[in-house]
Amino acid sequence: MPGPTALNFSEATSHDMFAQRLPQSKDDSLPQVLAAAVTHLHALIRELRPTQADWRKVIEFLTDVGHASDERRQEWVLLSDLLGASALVEEINSRRPKTATPNTVRGPFFRADVPQLPLGGNISLDGIGETLDVFGRVQDLDGDPIANAEIITWQANAQGFYENQQPDLQPEFNLRGCFRTDTDGRFHYRTIKPCGYGVPDDGPVGKLLRQAGYPLCRPAHLHFMIKAPEFETVTTHIYDGSDPHLAEDAIFAVKPELVRTFEQQGKGWLLKLTFIMVRARRGAGT
Amino acid sequence: MPGPTALNFSEATSHDMFAQRLPQSKDDSLPQVLAAAVTHLHALIRELRPTQADWRKVIEFLTDVGHASDERRQEWVLLSDLLGASALVEEINSRRPKTATPNTVRGPFFRADVPQLPLGGNISLDGIGETLDVFGRVQDLDGDPIANAEIITWQANAQGFYENQQPDLQPEFNLRGCFRTDTDGRFHYRTIKPCGYGVPDDGPVGKLLRQAGYPLCRPAHLHFMIKAPEFETVTTHIYDGSDPHLAEDAIFAVKPELVRTFEQQGKGWLLKLTFIMVRARRGAGT
Repeated sequence: MPGPTALNFSEATSHDMFAQRLPQSKDDSLPQVLAAAVTHLHALIRELRPTQADWRKVIEFLTDVGHASDERRQEWVLLSDLLGASALVEEINSRRPKTATPNTVRGPFFRADVPQLPLGGNISLDGIGETLDVFGRVQDLDGDPIANAEIITWQANAQGFYENQQPDLQPEFNLRGCFRTDTDGRFHYRTIKPCGYGVPDDGPVGKLLRQAGYPLCRPAHLHFMIKAPEFETVTTHIYDGSDPHLAEDAIFAVKPELVRTFEQQGKGWLLKLTFIMVRARRGAGT
Repeated sequence: MPGPTALNFSEATSHDMFAQRLPQSKDDSLPQVLAAAVTHLHALIRELRPTQADWRKVIEFLTDVGHASDERRQEWVLLSDLLGASALVEEINSRRPKTATPNTVRGPFFRADVPQLPLGGNISLDGIGETLDVFGRVQDLDGDPIANAEIITWQANAQGFYENQQPDLQPEFNLRGCFRTDTDGRFHYRTIKPCGYGVPDDGPVGKLLRQAGYPLCRPAHLHFMIKAPEFETVTTHIYDGSDPHLAEDAIFAVKPELVRTFEQQGKGWLLKLTFIMVRARRGAGT
């Protein structure tokens, strides 16, 4: 039988005992990541002092979140977003010059398989809502146009729902589109004015946060992902400056630089945008 | 548009911004639990400084763990066990007198629906392995017998696998049984000598920890859950004192009080046990 110190698991030693079993190589980051995660996890457990029944509830919650995630719904991204983790990761990695368009959280409703449309196309496939004409330009830090940049946009409808939340009510790919900028870096398309919305609270993550009294609203916005060779990909939102909930965005994704005025134009609306991209450093991921 | 401070999300403020949105009531523990969890989560992110791609790997890992969990397999319990979280929760809640049998981690292979057998029954349904006769007594702190206590036992086979890991190779309920102590608090049953084993590494949790170089062995043991009215339920392991891996149990569940000598007896083995239970405090969960 081993000596008593080898079995000396206690509140004071638990995280060190875990770390000591990992290889001490400095070349491999995974053991360091695990050791850091376990240190914080054990500190949290010592602080909260859950009973076994409490801990089983934590396991049940994680199990429910896992079962609520599928191809259509990414409940883990929602959890990361609502706990401010996604925004913090963006913040840590946002080292762009002040004049460049900042990134913000991608959110759980992105789809990569969106069809490409000609400039001027209408992404509102059901025609429901107040029309919005979007005119944009993509340029570099010097103001020079970026031609053939790929613009992927997605947004909620006038009731605040994305098409993948309402597969039976909205046409597939409703309010999603992919465009290419022209030689002058310009793009335009037609859509409808999006509505702000409550974050989905029909899954385990939304239910938990609502139960805790956490505000679950998102101000009205359009999503954009903009890719161009040799430039850092921009993944961002553009917010409607008239939305009353700008300061209490549930996922901490509002930045002053991303708020714009939607201009009234006859019965519809007009939005003018400029996206300013930064050249990718050599070897850096885009 | 709100003033700049309302949108002042930064590395320094992120966890406070989250906490400030929660109700400040002291009666409700959920907001406090969430605020504490977010404080540690954000501190970990600040420490590790993941890229967006790193963070997507974390989300993918959680998604994989979720999808690997079903009625037969609880990958979250395995994760909690291997990160030492389950052992720490047990440690925090173990406030028994020194002479009482301590709890340890329940583990992911427990099944509640095990059939009840008469005393002396054989739980080895396939007869494979060296026979082991278990003779036990359940008593209180004064040494008085606890009659009609329920003993649920489960264990790995001689190759180190539980029946619910090998539904096609082992009979259902192989090496599981439920017994009742007699009027003298005694029970006995026949089984086979269990083998130590590697923690399952075919799922995302085992794969990750193996990749990190973490040792994944568990010394040979029997599991017991013992219930009796008015007593705290004992959920524990009994370890084979001759196992060479006692000091490096992957889930930190070995305690010196739970290590026993398996005595040779002809061609088979004999194990004598005493479980000492503590009266439950009024109103406390058992």
